[in-house]
Amino acid sequence: MAKTDAQFVKEIADINTDFPQWYTDVVLKTQLVDYGPVKGTMVIRPYGYAVWELIRDELDKRFKATGHVNAYFPLFIPYSLLVKETEHVEGFAPEVALVTHVGKEELPEPLVVRPTSETIICDMYSKWVQSYRDLPLLINQWANVVRWEKTTRPFLRTSEFLWQEGHTLHATREEAEEETLKMLGVYEEFMKNVLAIPVLTGRKTEKEKFAGAIATYTMEAMMLDGKSLQSGTSHFFGQNFSKAYDIKFLDKDGTLKHPYQTSWGTSTRLMGALIMAHGDQRGLALPPMVAPTQVVIIPIAAHKGGVIEKAEQVYNALKDAGVRVKLDTSEQSAGWKFNEYEMKGVPIRLEIGPRDIENGICMLSRRDTLEKVSADLSGIVSAVQLLLKDIQTNMYNKALAFRDSHIVEVHNLKELGDAVNNNCFAKAMWCEDVECEMKIKEKYSATSRCMPFDQTPFDDKCVTGCGKKVTKVVYFAKAY
Amino acid sequence: MAKTDAQFVKEIADINTDFPQWYTDVVLKTQLVDYGPVKGTMVIRPYGYAVWELIRDELDKRFKATGHVNAYFPLFIPYSLLVKETEHVEGFAPEVALVTHVGKEELPEPLVVRPTSETIICDMYSKWVQSYRDLPLLINQWANVVRWEKTTRPFLRTSEFLWQEGHTLHATREEAEEETLKMLGVYEEFMKNVLAIPVLTGRKTEKEKFAGAIATYTMEAMMLDGKSLQSGTSHFFGQNFSKAYDIKFLDKDGTLKHPYQTSWGTSTRLMGALIMAHGDQRGLALPPMVAPTQVVIIPIAAHKGGVIEKAEQVYNALKDAGVRVKLDTSEQSAGWKFNEYEMKGVPIRLEIGPRDIENGICMLSRRDTLEKVSADLSGIVSAVQLLLKDIQTNMYNKALAFRDSHIVEVHNLKELGDAVNNNCFAKAMWCEDVECEMKIKEKYSATSRCMPFDQTPFDDKCVTGCGKKVTKVVYFAKAY
Repeated sequence: MAKTDAQFVKEIADINTDFPQWYTDVVLKTQLVDYGPVKGTMVIRPYGYAVWELIRDELDKRFKATGHVNAYFPLFIPYSLLVKETEHVEGFAPEVALVTHVGKEELPEPLVVRPTSETIICDMYSKWVQSYRDLPLLINQWANVVRWEKTTRPFLRTSEFLWQEGHTLHATREEAEEETLKMLGVYEEFMKNVLAIPVLTGRKTEKEKFAGAIATYTMEAMMLDGKSLQSGTSHFFGQNFSKAYDIKFLDKDGTLKHPYQTSWGTSTRLMGALIMAHGDQRGLALPPMVAPTQVVIIPIAAHKGGVIEKAEQVYNALKDAGVRVKLDTSEQSAGWKFNEYEMKGVPIRLEIGPRDIENGICMLSRRDTLEKVSADLSGIVSAVQLLLKDIQTNMYNKALAFRDSHIVEVHNLKELGDAVNNNCFAKAMWCEDVECEMKIKEKYSATSRCMPFDQTPFDDKCVTGCGKKVTKVVYFAKAY
Repeated sequence: MAKTDAQFVKEIADINTDFPQWYTDVVLKTQLVDYGPVKGTMVIRPYGYAVWELIRDELDKRFKATGHVNAYFPLFIPYSLLVKETEHVEGFAPEVALVTHVGKEELPEPLVVRPTSETIICDMYSKWVQSYRDLPLLINQWANVVRWEKTTRPFLRTSEFLWQEGHTLHATREEAEEETLKMLGVYEEFMKNVLAIPVLTGRKTEKEKFAGAIATYTMEAMMLDGKSLQSGTSHFFGQNFSKAYDIKFLDKDGTLKHPYQTSWGTSTRLMGALIMAHGDQRGLALPPMVAPTQVVIIPIAAHKGGVIEKAEQVYNALKDAGVRVKLDTSEQSAGWKFNEYEMKGVPIRLEIGPRDIENGICMLSRRDTLEKVSADLSGIVSAVQLLLKDIQTNMYNKALAFRDSHIVEVHNLKELGDAVNNNCFAKAMWCEDVECEMKIKEKYSATSRCMPFDQTPFDDKCVTGCGKKVTKVVYFAKAY
């Protein structure tokens, strides 16, 4: 009754031969997203937004549990404020949207539509912070930001996107460094336990770090095409911004000091990670933790007596137990429904028909493995809850196995090229010279993704053959 | 130990003689909000944002319970899209912020920063809606919007504010009209049971309705200075937008039709309502439903043995019961803390000292009445829960009594002027002539707030003395 993978290819481009088109087909056909009327913008449709709300709530819970509070800062930043931190403005100036007029009147100074909020937040912090008693200041913001991009793709790179940005101030360097790594850890745990995606964590190279940061830490997720998706970053600013924006506090020892600062962010890019880490030829596969519908109940031969009633009973039992469940009694055929919910990535399909009811059972079909098992109706709630947990774990393990089998330790440029051209990450030793990094980028379109925390060397010369002494272990990969 | 009202006047302007300055002092000193660097913008500080999160979550729950889903539409609207609905563009064009450049490059067409999203949402709906099966379409959005204002005040009127906007499409006029009123009802119930604010509901006059609507329904709340605050509106658009934006669906009868549309919104203005409906000389008074801290525990003589331990026990018991509770063990004096939390509007202060512990009691001080009662520590959780409920109800009843004692039925212009100049709403009969409405506005700075659903006439001539036959009961008031 359900379609085969081959039949799905008619609707969704072949995942093996045309991954980019597969992605576009999936995001549009599952109604996660649509293109907005302004080039490069996206509309997050109700199904996509429901996933985003689950992501947001899970992250927000973790931020609050680690002592952070939310606030909201203005969308518009005076141009003069943006330019105070030199490296920062150089990084963002070319892609900022500028408001120059209101109605027919020209503004005295153009306003920047925030590409990120360090500058305006620092301006406010300089008013709010006076004493060591005001520290640490641990504020997060959920907001939209705008960065004009030449090439755009829904969720991955859009002119406007939704994100969260944490901005914290600390009395000491040690405390700020600890915060930077703590939040990277929060992200990593979230990726694993909520999105079921393993990440490589580590530090960005000087070339790849955030404009204005001393150190940028990142988490990199491997997509099914072997490319890397930077899924979240955490920056240590030292006193760069607190000096540029004149933030000072009176410390316990009676002297005025500049505090140390961090910022950290994730965005609607995570939606892209979800799609490209777990999808298949049939479309989306959502981990139960972020599936707006965890179980869809499809009555079979619904016109027969008692089927709808039983389906409703199961629906109510699951709903009362806190499962996000949907009962589809629409006039569409069962086959159409099977395909539709598979495409939308619903973790469990529960089929129930007249014969099942006679036998006191129903069928549970899991999206991750496409396996089908029968379950006793008498214990359906716990059976479903167990299966949801198992799907969540299995999806992570599957992604982890895929990732680990697609990392290659490379010893020279050719091996590096072969790795990244064969859907793999290349783990290499590097001399820390930016020219070698550039060479790899130009030759293979692969960039340094991160320098992992485990820096055990496995070679004594730079992968490029430049002859220089190696100092760093680095992952190189093609990236989104 | 606690300050008197008179002592508070030193910090917060006199609520009776300088209400506007009282408002400004309260919003700034309680750290609800601060001014942003761009004129007319505001920063919602953590304490203010925590209140807003509670408001948002309570509203969102109600929208979902009535079948609505959330989505996110782009911030930028092409100028050409804004101008399709003539009345609408005339209403908004003078106050829209325009993005004309990205970096140093000029855009081919200016982009409007959304002042409201009817136009861009209609553009998307015209792609999404084909059949009666796609209706009703019940979408809500939480977003920031920008309307340039000459005179601004935090929460009440700011260039950028946060809001929600529901946009629905229906197959029939009846269904759309029902939705318009249903959502007004949702707002009214929320105002009563969450913000503890009674509202007058009814229809706006032609002059005061939303640009592009056939009918605008409103809820008007009375502030402590007798002025009205429009707290939320619900619009019936008929087919105005669906015709202008070419939204069509194939109905069951096989013909193409334009659907009927509604939109409805509330915003961070509600924060202003909260402050000005319940505050007093000591500052904020927050209804328990939206108080980020519902109970603050202040240990007295905390250095004495057992006090902190007992306070922590009470803290944990309340926390486990789901009460939003804070234990303040900071070095500040008890008196300082009393004043601080009174100013911040925390509903209950729980004091506990050595003698209380000996007697197995603690003191509960309620913010709404400033009364103090003792409570047995053994039953503290239920005592606090009961008191929170009582405070919530009492705050509503107090606001209702104030409101009802400040509405005056007026029979001529002089009575109307006296009413609105004495902190009252004037309930008047009106001929529906816009010139009479304008006359009242020019003479007394009072506008028509709404035509209530109960239209029982109490006079046979227009309040202005124009001589024309009366047709409508209208509330006139000064307004924010």
